[in-house]
Amino acid sequence: VENKDDKELKRVLNEFHFADVAEILDELDLEDSVYVIKLLDSEITSEILMELDEDIREKVLKNLSAKEIAEEVEELDTDDAADMIAELPENRQAEVISKIEDEEHRDEITELLAYEEDTAGSLMAKELVKVYETWTVGGCLRRIRGQAKEVTRVHSIYVVNKEEKLIGRLSLKDLIVAKSDQKISDISKDTVDSVNVNDDLEVVAKVMAKYDLEAIPVVDDNQTLLGRITIDDIVDVLKEEAEKDYQMAAGLTGDVEADDSILELTRARLPWLVLGLFGGLGSVFIMKGYENIMETVPSLFFYTPLIAAMAGNVGVQSSAIIVQGIANDNVKGSMGSRLLKEVGLSLINGFVLALLVILFGFIIGQDTTESLAIAVSMMSVIVVAALVGTFVPIILDKRGIDPAIATGPFITTSNDILGIYLFFVLSGLIIGF
Amino acid sequence: VENKDDKELKRVLNEFHFADVAEILDELDLEDSVYVIKLLDSEITSEILMELDEDIREKVLKNLSAKEIAEEVEELDTDDAADMIAELPENRQAEVISKIEDEEHRDEITELLAYEEDTAGSLMAKELVKVYETWTVGGCLRRIRGQAKEVTRVHSIYVVNKEEKLIGRLSLKDLIVAKSDQKISDISKDTVDSVNVNDDLEVVAKVMAKYDLEAIPVVDDNQTLLGRITIDDIVDVLKEEAEKDYQMAAGLTGDVEADDSILELTRARLPWLVLGLFGGLGSVFIMKGYENIMETVPSLFFYTPLIAAMAGNVGVQSSAIIVQGIANDNVKGSMGSRLLKEVGLSLINGFVLALLVILFGFIIGQDTTESLAIAVSMMSVIVVAALVGTFVPIILDKRGIDPAIATGPFITTSNDILGIYLFFVLSGLIIGF
Repeated sequence: VENKDDKELKRVLNEFHFADVAEILDELDLEDSVYVIKLLDSEITSEILMELDEDIREKVLKNLSAKEIAEEVEELDTDDAADMIAELPENRQAEVISKIEDEEHRDEITELLAYEEDTAGSLMAKELVKVYETWTVGGCLRRIRGQAKEVTRVHSIYVVNKEEKLIGRLSLKDLIVAKSDQKISDISKDTVDSVNVNDDLEVVAKVMAKYDLEAIPVVDDNQTLLGRITIDDIVDVLKEEAEKDYQMAAGLTGDVEADDSILELTRARLPWLVLGLFGGLGSVFIMKGYENIMETVPSLFFYTPLIAAMAGNVGVQSSAIIVQGIANDNVKGSMGSRLLKEVGLSLINGFVLALLVILFGFIIGQDTTESLAIAVSMMSVIVVAALVGTFVPIILDKRGIDPAIATGPFITTSNDILGIYLFFVLSGLIIGF
Repeated sequence: VENKDDKELKRVLNEFHFADVAEILDELDLEDSVYVIKLLDSEITSEILMELDEDIREKVLKNLSAKEIAEEVEELDTDDAADMIAELPENRQAEVISKIEDEEHRDEITELLAYEEDTAGSLMAKELVKVYETWTVGGCLRRIRGQAKEVTRVHSIYVVNKEEKLIGRLSLKDLIVAKSDQKISDISKDTVDSVNVNDDLEVVAKVMAKYDLEAIPVVDDNQTLLGRITIDDIVDVLKEEAEKDYQMAAGLTGDVEADDSILELTRARLPWLVLGLFGGLGSVFIMKGYENIMETVPSLFFYTPLIAAMAGNVGVQSSAIIVQGIANDNVKGSMGSRLLKEVGLSLINGFVLALLVILFGFIIGQDTTESLAIAVSMMSVIVVAALVGTFVPIILDKRGIDPAIATGPFITTSNDILGIYLFFVLSGLIIGF
């Protein structure tokens, strides 16, 4: 396709959906991508650009002039436009903004850029259909025909009073079903969910999921209607959140992908490995302190990886359950009852596992006291690991820290050290050294 | 509120959104919940029931007669109705279905119940707005007024030909903007994304996310329009998928919640712990084989938890990246280049960590050859662990097994054993035993 047969290429690409073209460009080399982008109309390419992989979009934009970017931006809805500009280096941002011809569009984008990251304001679009409560259905339909051309998809029509305050909503369906001389205030629903422009995106996602909304209006502290957020953007937020939590649990910082460079991947992975290493070195230290019993009860040392693994696994399980519970707001009941439950649970698990250890010791002909000491200490380690896994996230959450960082390497490492220490102390008490 | 002051209670609860009432009921005891459900109109309670926590809904439904459930079901959209019935025990399902008075609704629900779980058919609703290509805009608007009353939210209007085959779509906006004597076929868009009724829900979610759709029509193999899926249901699917992956990575089977019973939690956790225990016992076995070198190089044994931890952590990182990459379809390039990259990456990480180990050995005054042997073996273990973490999910995926099961306990356990084995073999080669 890359034989520079412009006309043919243009015809073929125009038939594809922009998301598909973006996928093709993700595969092409940079030069060809820029070539294709310059070839097609900005009406289509702006959408293609938004669908491109972030890294590739960044590179393509570098090869476009401020004027060319401004043209792309003019075609985008305000929310996407602001996102695209926000990705540019600071010095180019102002340049691109100044080249946007449509003054209203420019002002709206500038407003959106001012909101803090991860707030409702940063995700909302200014495009929406707004009607005043005093209008009639007929007049409303006429004016909506004008407003709606700008808005890609009409979800709800928002009703405002003359101070631009949000007072209700209305669906297109209601409007079509109503008689043309009815007043808007007669047919509109006066309960309308909205979010504050400074609300966290997680709050917005929760509200929209709870009430199954497809769009939600965004207001300021005075209830003035500022914009709206649509569900497709929230889907992206939810996906990113889920990926972030998953990566954190696996010991990865930042948003890495399989196809990132080795340097980026190292930056995401190494810090957690170093943490794990320090944990391991801590265990070395603890075990060195018991060097003198190596001759008398060598088998204790054989069990240390098992103890570390059990402490780590139990801790990760407990923390994962609690982290998800916190995220879904279904961690109820008092701390005391949770403590009891976690202890009960880990005693059951620990008991089964301890029996297996004793059985194994019997099979390999291990000293019975030793087997018993190992099994009992392991059971205690499991209980303690479960408690750490449960309460560290709860405490972090109470202090306003994202509990998700607790799952994964953090809990594993601290449980490894704690587990091995406890294991030697308790075995020592039972065997007597 | 529970003083049986029916009128007042009814008034108060009617003012709440049903999702809020559901939240209140989740907290109440069963008897009170059933009481409230019986008190309110089925129009509202049907929605409340759908929002309830699954376990609680099950219990409440047990306390309602088949007739009462059928009344609730009549008020629900077909997709929710089918979901609610599917949750009932088999013998009650038929009873409830037979009590549904609206024949069309009953047939549609029966149709939906027949689709396999996790397919588009199982999630779709029969409610949609359908127009024939030959209609005029004016006639269409009139008929839509009728159809739309049944459909909670109109997303797109689907255009079919006289064989009921999906041939295009149209937004309410387009209809309002058009002139009343235009023909539908003139204003409809003839490109319309659709999914097959047997498509997997993951496919549906991907298509909808890619094209930012809010609803997608579902067709059979002959392109006949059968129903539609809306984005709010897909949001739930995405959330569930993310939670499932997260839980699998943490070593939890089934969909457990913090507030489940101890028995349910044990069932979800114990199997993975037993797996981890077998892994640990495997390590015991390996180390027992090296018992004779305990006197000469005891420090090797102190490092085993560290080696196991590093092998586990590296493996989980690698597999998490690959599992996400597979889920997002961005694992590109040949197996060979991926192999090279993973080796390069783990060599860099391993080298840094090895230096730290040597430094630590120097500080605690450890024999230099021993430190070197430990550092070099650890580096090799890291490389192997990364390769296992990367290629096990890829191989699982190629064989049609969900690669997500590889992250977490499975990779950790196998890497623990493999790592400790390699560690002793390589240290043996370097130190000479």
